[in-house]
Formats: sequence, structure tokens, C-alpha cells
Amino acid sequence: MIVAVDAAGGDHYPKAPVEGALLAVKEDPNLSVLLLGPEEMIKKALEGKEYDKARILIQDAPQIIGMEESPASAVKGKQQSSIVIGMGLHKAGKCQAFVSAGNTGALLAASTFILGKLEGIHRPTIGAYYPTVKGFRLLLDAGANLEIKPEVALQFAKMGQVYCRQILGIESPTVGLLNVGEEEGKGTEQLKEIYKYIKDHSGFIGNLEGKDILSGKADVYLTDGLVGNILLKFGESIPATIMKLVENAVSKLDLEVEEVVAAQKILKTALSPFDYERVGGVPFLGVNGVSIVGHGGSSPLAIKNMIKSAVSCINNDVNGKIVASLN
Amino acid sequence: MIVAVDAAGGDHYPKAPVEGALLAVKEDPNLSVLLLGPEEMIKKALEGKEYDKARILIQDAPQIIGMEESPASAVKGKQQSSIVIGMGLHKAGKCQAFVSAGNTGALLAASTFILGKLEGIHRPTIGAYYPTVKGFRLLLDAGANLEIKPEVALQFAKMGQVYCRQILGIESPTVGLLNVGEEEGKGTEQLKEIYKYIKDHSGFIGNLEGKDILSGKADVYLTDGLVGNILLKFGESIPATIMKLVENAVSKLDLEVEEVVAAQKILKTALSPFDYERVGGVPFLGVNGVSIVGHGGSSPLAIKNMIKSAVSCINNDVNGKIVASLN
Repeated sequence: MIVAVDAAGGDHYPKAPVEGALLAVKEDPNLSVLLLGPEEMIKKALEGKEYDKARILIQDAPQIIGMEESPASAVKGKQQSSIVIGMGLHKAGKCQAFVSAGNTGALLAASTFILGKLEGIHRPTIGAYYPTVKGFRLLLDAGANLEIKPEVALQFAKMGQVYCRQILGIESPTVGLLNVGEEEGKGTEQLKEIYKYIKDHSGFIGNLEGKDILSGKADVYLTDGLVGNILLKFGESIPATIMKLVENAVSKLDLEVEEVVAAQKILKTALSPFDYERVGGVPFLGVNGVSIVGHGGSSPLAIKNMIKSAVSCINNDVNGKIVASLN
Repeated sequence: MIVAVDAAGGDHYPKAPVEGALLAVKEDPNLSVLLLGPEEMIKKALEGKEYDKARILIQDAPQIIGMEESPASAVKGKQQSSIVIGMGLHKAGKCQAFVSAGNTGALLAASTFILGKLEGIHRPTIGAYYPTVKGFRLLLDAGANLEIKPEVALQFAKMGQVYCRQILGIESPTVGLLNVGEEEGKGTEQLKEIYKYIKDHSGFIGNLEGKDILSGKADVYLTDGLVGNILLKFGESIPATIMKLVENAVSKLDLEVEEVVAAQKILKTALSPFDYERVGGVPFLGVNGVSIVGHGGSSPLAIKNMIKSAVSCINNDVNGKIVASLN
């Protein structure tokens, strides 16, 4: 199996994607990784490393799409970028997945335009892992679709449930609709229509409020991309905020060094559910391929876990099961 | 000055509002509190307490509006409730403010219908204090207006700035629009229109993302009531979630008792910015009076602080300054 990895994406390229690829290949003897980016840059990043040369492939892609570039024009204008070339190779069957920590919008655009949509899918969606006291759960949509129609919401629910079942190992995944109150009839017209349309869907547990997210009340948190994106970035900011508040507290209190050390150890363990590195990324669900986007700040470990997620999606035939779930 | 307090609202009535009122009166020699609710219930709650009887007044209001009752029908159907009678007394000038931890929707409806709107105001708004590493900031709207038009958004910004200046003591309050990205042109059509309409407003610092909230990047976080309500309830769930995660961590780690105690002390101090009790509540901004709603779970301390907020709003003539800010 060949997974393509964008060696020119994210805040820490080429180091993070190249080292992540080497970690993944070391762990999985059946895996080869195709690194995409400016060839010389990749070769330099590989210099002095030990790895199985037969399973680390390089594809030159001289153009680089920046993190802040406008997605549509970047994809159209940079045909020699890692994203466009990689997605083309995936479409042509030269690799089975594409993994990147790069420009999310450009990746979504390239995935949708080049790979196309799965049969029957209205809109692909960006999913995100959300930390809860029960472990990571799925937030859909995390920013691809700022407004969603009822038919689209139902497909998001189904795709999320397939993903939870196949990848997170949750046997009967539940779906909750984020809203301002629990009762049917709450919320905007859009939310009322969605509720009505999906209320009989298997696993749907009704409206959920903001307080129900961190407690892990549902397996799939269904929402539009506006709410989802704001919540996603908010959630990512929690650990650093808590750490900062703890620092302030420590400087105010009169404590022994050992007490501070113990508190830091406890807090690090406590906040580990918020550690996105461990879980890598969620694929764009609904595209005809496996295209995974991770956090821009992804470390080598995060990239390795994204590659593992891609392998799981392929091995578990997530896409086949999504198509089957639509009927 | 007389502040009316709903003795039949919130999860802990009559104990919390009655005790909160006594605390407030003890602190402020110029203050009288008018307790509203079933007279016998209030008298019983006051039994055995020491207080200045001349400054604790009672108004019988035999009907009780439940926390989950439909706002419009509750206000219409329960004319003898503390909320309806209290708001009527406020309208008639018999008291200068109304404070409650009861049914938010019913309070908003009664405030809007009975007190009316301030001159020139399109829509009143529910504000909420949001904890940041810089202290509490203001989130508008927190659930009263699920969708907002540009003219309404601009008024919310102005009202929020007046409140920050007068009550939070922030000299030049900034306003940020919650969105999925920082650049102009991001977000839904609604957000693009709002941005265009308010971009030249003094203090507007542009779009903010979810990650900018806890860091206190703006003084007023402007958003619609859907996003605001989900964020508000999410934020309120953070301390208990972190405490639960810390408990789990402690049970996993091999620690000395003293280390655990120290960690708990640090964490309690660190999470104190999330403590809503300290700040009471924010008034409905834009109504022609001072009507403050607090968290349903408000303690006596929280009620006392809500009463203090009401007194500040009156003393600083927040409403007069809001009307002046519109031109």
C-alpha cells in the first residue's frame, strides 16, 4: 500500500512530514510512503536518516501552496504543487491515500475537484476529532459547509456513524444536533428543518447543547461549518489556556517546588485527551478517495498518526461502507 | 434605591435569592431589596435571619414560572408571577431594577413586552460574561437573537462597548466578529454583510476565530445567538470537565496525598476566572429598564453579585449612555 504524504505542507515542512513518514514506514512493514514536494528539499530532509529506501518514494512537485493562499486560485494556478500532483496520482491509482498538514481549503478543493464525490453524496465534509471525557468523538462539519440543508445533514450523520464504527470502534454510534436547547422546535429555521428530517434516523438522540460536548453525550456532533469551525478552534485553544492560567496561579500561590512539579504532571496527564497529535486527522468524508488533512502545526508524531488513519480507512473500506449506508 | 429580586426563580429558590438579597443589603447601606414570590414562602425563608427589616420588602406573587416553561405562554398566562409583577413594578417606577435566576426566555419576553425597548433599539440582546486569560469579557448575543442583521449587529457592538466602559472599566473597548477566518470576506453571507456594515465602527478589530476567545483578543465578542449560546454553555462546562479529567489523572498516577492537595489548590485558583458566581449576570441590553438574568444554578453569592451589577448599571446610567451611543 502506498500513502502519499505532502512534504511541502503544514507549519513544519519538510521536517515534520518527512520524519512522520519514516516513523510510519518503520511501524508498518506493508506500507510505502510517497513524499511529494520540491525534490531537492525532500532529499536534504532525508539526508543522514536511516530508512528502508525501497519504501520511501519521492515525487518532485516544485510549487508550494502557502497556508493562507486562496484555495480555488491556488489549486488552479499551481498545477505543479504537491497537493495537485498528489491528488492526481491518487485519482490515477498510483497511491491509495493522500495525507497533508497543509492549506485545508486547498486540500478540500483539490479533493473535491480531482477525486470527485462518492456516488450519491451531495457535499463532502470536514470532520474533526473532538476531545471529551469519554475520548475523542467526531464533530461534523468543521468548516467545509457553513450552512447545511437537511439532506446534507442526514448524509453527514451517516458518514460520521460509518467513521465512528469503522475507525473509532464504536458499535452503535449516536448522533446529536448542536442547538440552543434540547426540545424539538428549538433553534433557527435551518435547525428545525434538519431536526424534522433526521429525527427518525437510527442513532439520532436529538438536540444537544454546548454543555453536552465535552461530556461526550454523542459520538457524532452534527452542526454547520460555522459553529463547527468556531468550536474546533476554541477546543484547540483550551489546553494552552489552562496551562497559562495554571502558570498564573502558581506564581500567585506560595508553593514548594515538588508541589508544582506534581501539579504539572497531573495536569499534563489530565489534558492528554486534548492532545490532537495522538489521533492525527479525519479524512474529508464523501470524496472518492482517502484524503486526510491535519492541523497545520502537526508534529512528526501527528503526521505518523495521520498516515495510520489513512491506512485504517483503506483497510476498513470506509468509503464503500459510506456508499452502502446511503440507501 | 430599590432592586427587585425574584425569590421564585432559579434552581435554588427561595434560599439563594433570599440569602443573596440579605448579603447585598448588608454590604450596601443605600440599598433596599424587594423580594417577589409567594409571600409565605419568602417569610419562611427569612425566618431566624438577622437583617434590617426596613430594607427587605416583600411583594406577594403567588404564581411560579418554571425553568422549562414556554416563555410567551408563561408570561401571558401567569400574570401573578414574580416575573410579571416585578417587571410591572419596575415599569411603574416602584423599583429601579429586576434581578432573577429564573427562566431566561420568560425574563427576556417580560422585559421586552413590559419594559419595552430603549429609544432607537431594534432588538434587545442577552449578554454573557466570557472568561478569558485577561478576565471576563462580553459575549453578545448569547441566545436571544439566533440570527442577526447588520444594523442589529452594529447596535449590539455599541451596547457592548458602553457596558464594557461603564461596568468593566475598559476605556476603549474593542469588538471582534466571530467567524471561520480572519480575512474580510470569510464566512456566511450574513457574516460578510455584518463585516461590511460595521468595518468602520470605532473599536472594531475585524473577524476573530474560535482560538481568539479564551485569549481575550477582544472586549466584545460579537456573534449570533446560535453560536453565542452554544459557546456560552460550552464555556460553562469547562471547569467541571477539567476537574473530572484531573480526577481521572490522579487515579492513574502514583502520587503522595500532599501532591494531590497541592494540585487541587493550584487548579482551583487557575480555574477561578471561569467562576461565574463572582460576576453575577449581564442585563438584557436594549430594554428600557435594568433587568438582569443569572445562571439557573446561581448561589446566594451569585445573586448578591447580580444585585450589585444592577446597582452599577443604575449608578452609571448605562441605558442613557446606550441611547446616546446610537447617534
